[in-house]
Amino acid sequence: MIIITRPGVTDEELDHIRERIEALGPRTHLIRGEHRTVVLCIGDQQDLVNVPMLSIPGVEAVRPVMKPYKLASRQGHEESSEVQIGDSTIGGNALSIIAGPCSVEGLSMLQETARHVKAAGATALRGGAFKPRSSPYAFDGLGEEGLKILSDVRAETGLPVVTEVMDTRQVDLVAEYADVLQIGARNMQNFSLLTEVGRLHRPILLKRGMSAKVTDLLLAAEYIMKQGNMNVLLCERGIRTFEDSTRNTFDLAAIPVLKKETHLPVVADPSHAAGRRDLVPALSYAAIAAGADGLIVEVHPNPEMAVSDGDQSLVFDEFDSLMAGLAPFAEAAGRTL
Amino acid sequence: MIIITRPGVTDEELDHIRERIEALGPRTHLIRGEHRTVVLCIGDQQDLVNVPMLSIPGVEAVRPVMKPYKLASRQGHEESSEVQIGDSTIGGNALSIIAGPCSVEGLSMLQETARHVKAAGATALRGGAFKPRSSPYAFDGLGEEGLKILSDVRAETGLPVVTEVMDTRQVDLVAEYADVLQIGARNMQNFSLLTEVGRLHRPILLKRGMSAKVTDLLLAAEYIMKQGNMNVLLCERGIRTFEDSTRNTFDLAAIPVLKKETHLPVVADPSHAAGRRDLVPALSYAAIAAGADGLIVEVHPNPEMAVSDGDQSLVFDEFDSLMAGLAPFAEAAGRTL
Amino acid sequence: MIIITRPGVTDEELDHIRERIEALGPRTHLIRGEHRTVVLCIGDQQDLVNVPMLSIPGVEAVRPVMKPYKLASRQGHEESSEVQIGDSTIGGNALSIIAGPCSVEGLSMLQETARHVKAAGATALRGGAFKPRSSPYAFDGLGEEGLKILSDVRAETGLPVVTEVMDTRQVDLVAEYADVLQIGARNMQNFSLLTEVGRLHRPILLKRGMSAKVTDLLLAAEYIMKQGNMNVLLCERGIRTFEDSTRNTFDLAAIPVLKKETHLPVVADPSHAAGRRDLVPALSYAAIAAGADGLIVEVHPNPEMAVSDGDQSLVFDEFDSLMAGLAPFAEAAGRTL
Amino acid sequence: MIIITRPGVTDEELDHIRERIEALGPRTHLIRGEHRTVVLCIGDQQDLVNVPMLSIPGVEAVRPVMKPYKLASRQGHEESSEVQIGDSTIGGNALSIIAGPCSVEGLSMLQETARHVKAAGATALRGGAFKPRSSPYAFDGLGEEGLKILSDVRAETGLPVVTEVMDTRQVDLVAEYADVLQIGARNMQNFSLLTEVGRLHRPILLKRGMSAKVTDLLLAAEYIMKQGNMNVLLCERGIRTFEDSTRNTFDLAAIPVLKKETHLPVVADPSHAAGRRDLVPALSYAAIAAGADGLIVEVHPNPEMAVSDGDQSLVFDEFDSLMAGLAPFAEAAGRTL
Repeated sequence: MIIITRPGVTDEELDHIRERIEALGPRTHLIRGEHRTVVLCIGDQQDLVNVPMLSIPGVEAVRPVMKPYKLASRQGHEESSEVQIGDSTIGGNALSIIAGPCSVEGLSMLQETARHVKAAGATALRGGAFKPRSSPYAFDGLGEEGLKILSDVRAETGLPVVTEVMDTRQVDLVAEYADVLQIGARNMQNFSLLTEVGRLHRPILLKRGMSAKVTDLLLAAEYIMKQGNMNVLLCERGIRTFEDSTRNTFDLAAIPVLKKETHLPVVADPSHAAGRRDLVPALSYAAIAAGADGLIVEVHPNPEMAVSDGDQSLVFDEFDSLMAGLAPFAEAAGRTL
Repeated sequence: MIIITRPGVTDEELDHIRERIEALGPRTHLIRGEHRTVVLCIGDQQDLVNVPMLSIPGVEAVRPVMKPYKLASRQGHEESSEVQIGDSTIGGNALSIIAGPCSVEGLSMLQETARHVKAAGATALRGGAFKPRSSPYAFDGLGEEGLKILSDVRAETGLPVVTEVMDTRQVDLVAEYADVLQIGARNMQNFSLLTEVGRLHRPILLKRGMSAKVTDLLLAAEYIMKQGNMNVLLCERGIRTFEDSTRNTFDLAAIPVLKKETHLPVVADPSHAAGRRDLVPALSYAAIAAGADGLIVEVHPNPEMAVSDGDQSLVFDEFDSLMAGLAPFAEAAGRTL
Repeated sequence: MIIITRPGVTDEELDHIRERIEALGPRTHLIRGEHRTVVLCIGDQQDLVNVPMLSIPGVEAVRPVMKPYKLASRQGHEESSEVQIGDSTIGGNALSIIAGPCSVEGLSMLQETARHVKAAGATALRGGAFKPRSSPYAFDGLGEEGLKILSDVRAETGLPVVTEVMDTRQVDLVAEYADVLQIGARNMQNFSLLTEVGRLHRPILLKRGMSAKVTDLLLAAEYIMKQGNMNVLLCERGIRTFEDSTRNTFDLAAIPVLKKETHLPVVADPSHAAGRRDLVPALSYAAIAAGADGLIVEVHPNPEMAVSDGDQSLVFDEFDSLMAGLAPFAEAAGRTL
Repeated sequence: MIIITRPGVTDEELDHIRERIEALGPRTHLIRGEHRTVVLCIGDQQDLVNVPMLSIPGVEAVRPVMKPYKLASRQGHEESSEVQIGDSTIGGNALSIIAGPCSVEGLSMLQETARHVKAAGATALRGGAFKPRSSPYAFDGLGEEGLKILSDVRAETGLPVVTEVMDTRQVDLVAEYADVLQIGARNMQNFSLLTEVGRLHRPILLKRGMSAKVTDLLLAAEYIMKQGNMNVLLCERGIRTFEDSTRNTFDLAAIPVLKKETHLPVVADPSHAAGRRDLVPALSYAAIAAGADGLIVEVHPNPEMAVSDGDQSLVFDEFDSLMAGLAPFAEAAGRTL
């Protein structure tokens, strides 16, 4: 950490700054420039995170040097992690395609969808039983009944199941049924929930919050990993900006940035990013071209009748086209589908 | 709701659109323009919220007419609501000043702070026992011990206590000790938590999320109110933008917008908006000038030693100056302090 | 256009609204709902753009139906436009790769770069003679001397030249030398400049502004086209958001959105979007996968010595790798390189 | 400037980094930490602005220490600047209220408006003769005829005139008529225009761009000042964010930030920030409470008939109320009106 002091800082202030830092472990180094004096902190700076540096008299600004996450960082963990989901892994050479409806609406629609997406090449089934909705008047999921349906359809199709958990009290329940627990964008900084799923040994699909920097996403992953659960999948699903031709702004560059910063697998959610089904293929191809390890895509037998997110769900034919269209891009990226 | 159809929409599609809408209650009205045909929906449109309109063949765009919140809306509830906090109310003519440290760090620092801010005119005490922190390595609060300290200091000073709840499992515990439960910005769309605090009869201070539109904030309030708890205080605390001279961008205009849209009281948090103590007075004066019903301000006996948010906490003298400086602005706004 | 009136609007107000609209041409249609009355405007609404609708008594909100651009719109111009640049076209099946240094720094560096990028497959040469710089203390280009160097290198290599124009007074000068005139992001809403380049018959590369919606970009193109110059190329180069791991946030979805909304060719600028050379390949592959008609990429013989934007410039070897890596993605997208 | 090197940087790389820097003037200082080695640059760093630091082998990140603006900075110029406009000054104790229509539409409407706002206490008259409009189909001003009308009305009322210049070719023309030349938000980084108005001795009202950081605004001012024109007024008028209840997001905190960073006067434009007239009073009071030196407000005799920005223009009665409401806030802020 580099501490920039204000013009005219006194020797007493400089001494005090150095004592304050050194009491927490790091050594300090003083460099006097023509206009400013700078204090450089050297050594383990873990404990500096709790210090309100700008409150120390004489300090004007602070410039961090180290990354604030460690377990998630690729530094010291150069090899990419692969996470086991059912019989396959994500993060290796083969792409993972997680597909299914926004919400589990009933057994037959989920069966139909699962059979179709499996035949088309999907490697896992998504479907929400507990649904976060901006309005309290919107459909919020079938709850445990939805979980049971997911489990039944897995038994039939063999597709591992990805489903969201929203409440610390439901973590054990959801973990009973799900192969992968999803933390939604709105809960990315629900630290109690992150801590709770960190106690599981089940993979966690962590979606980026709408106003989360890449660093915030990695710190959220760090919360889970700090509890011992290293099976975290990161998901880029768009951030909130002024642009209104799409539901969110798909931050494509976050994919290669994450692949450089972390060893964790990265998937993209083109459905939520776009909010419109017509853009899903273009965003999917681009995500794979940019290095994503997989996709999570909404598919519904009859989107017009969907109880949530129908506007961004593909019909079966569209999903087939997507998979067909994806093949050459997967190959171009050196991946298998 | 107004449904804009695509150029060349067929009569069959138009019939289908109208049937789909009317099956849910509303009547429809067809208007054929030169370029576009428009379907107008009339009547109670509650159930349309679940319909993926863009998925109905022939639909190109949808334009809502009604506001999506009802209980929070000022329409049909013209009179401003006043919420009781301890012996005083918020939302009436008198301004509420909630002050105290970011985190409860111990009994003596809280006592000292509470005595001081009370003497200077504060009407309630803030202090976090459960702390949401971006990094899992940062101090996250004293937990129940912190709640007990808050309660002890209330007993001594008579100041009602505002403290954050982060987990559905802690709602009852926090409600035992707190006069007002705070929902933090990162949990504004933690719908399980909103629902849970909606079951209490205790006031809820609901902070705006970093990427929440004003409408999202009102829908979050609606979640709480739908459960029967009408005692919701809304808090503008800054949104996340590209500007980096402040921690967040204080959306001052949200204050008068909220005062028009809702009957609920509105407070401002200049400390989190700015992230720097030197800006707190200017933001506080502006918030009151713009019509806020109160402030929530961070104060610490020795910010340099604070375990969280020290950089934005006022020292006692600064808080005294703030209160002195605020008086003429309160008067200019026709409010009492 | 749909006009939503306030609750309790009077008949006199409704009459006045309709008279005001009809005086400008459109017919109106009144629909009375349970809560609101709506006025629908039918017919040519060109003149409504100048009317401050919210200022008419009784009006609460306005919902546009029509797109505000016509010449740029794909509606009524379904076929994609191809723009001639030198001997090749952009917007057809073959991808255009515009490469070169940020700034023209001298003859030999430009010659060297042009020869190299041409050999690697570039179809045009970029290079700035007039440079917009955030700081007045930064290098701002060689001016006319730079234009002459560009022209000399074109004569030698046959590569058509793309260079920026910043000032209405320089339009004729730049047009003397350039094959394509570039309007930079900071000048996207410099309407005098747009109008001036609209009078040329030379292609214009129009970069999206940092805070421009897709609609704003299309309206800026419309300014140029309204003057008679239909040879406009649109360029996605990232928007400004809170994310700071990249210089801008590459709005990949804008590419397929633009391809749907307009018949104009669309290129992507991965260099400015990322601001870091290591991300340029991933963004390039993704842009082509998403449907872009070409790329504009910064290449420099020795980025460390570049006078501007060196951090995002590829060295020759990296450009060769980019072109090699791009080939399979171009093929997957059904394009030729 | 602090240069952070990558883990494993070699001695050769370090030597090269230091040579590269020192060749440009600054001295360097090497500090070896446990994980990273840091190179500190000391001395005049003016020339480093052109160096692409990340392109130097071994460099991982760069942290600036110095502010990039000098003439605009309050450092070394502690006293606030006052700028003469007509017979009064802006930046001193008396607030400046610049009022008038968005566009000059004709002599009588401008006369009427000028007389009214003067009687109510305005100190200058605003009105656009050249209008930047997002759509090429919208009214774009009366041009020189509008300037003449402004000049005639000044002659009658004695109010100095503020009007926008959009094109380098019009600078001399506008300067013939205007007391203050305005640079609009869309031209804040039109560097040719900034340079051109920097050659005048006339005050310049510089509006913040929609995606400009405070630092960008100060650098734009620096462009003007570098040419010798120190009479720059800065204007906060809202930035573009995801929030859509207002036209722009009024960044109130920018006012006290600017007052700390620069000696230049700061005014606020509540009309463009809000985009709705009902919010103009609240934003105006807040701006003054936060330390603004003045306001620029849109007023129109009949906004419903305005050819631009009618929705945000106050009618005469509303302007009178605004001025009456402002008085106690001005007094609370220790300012005169």
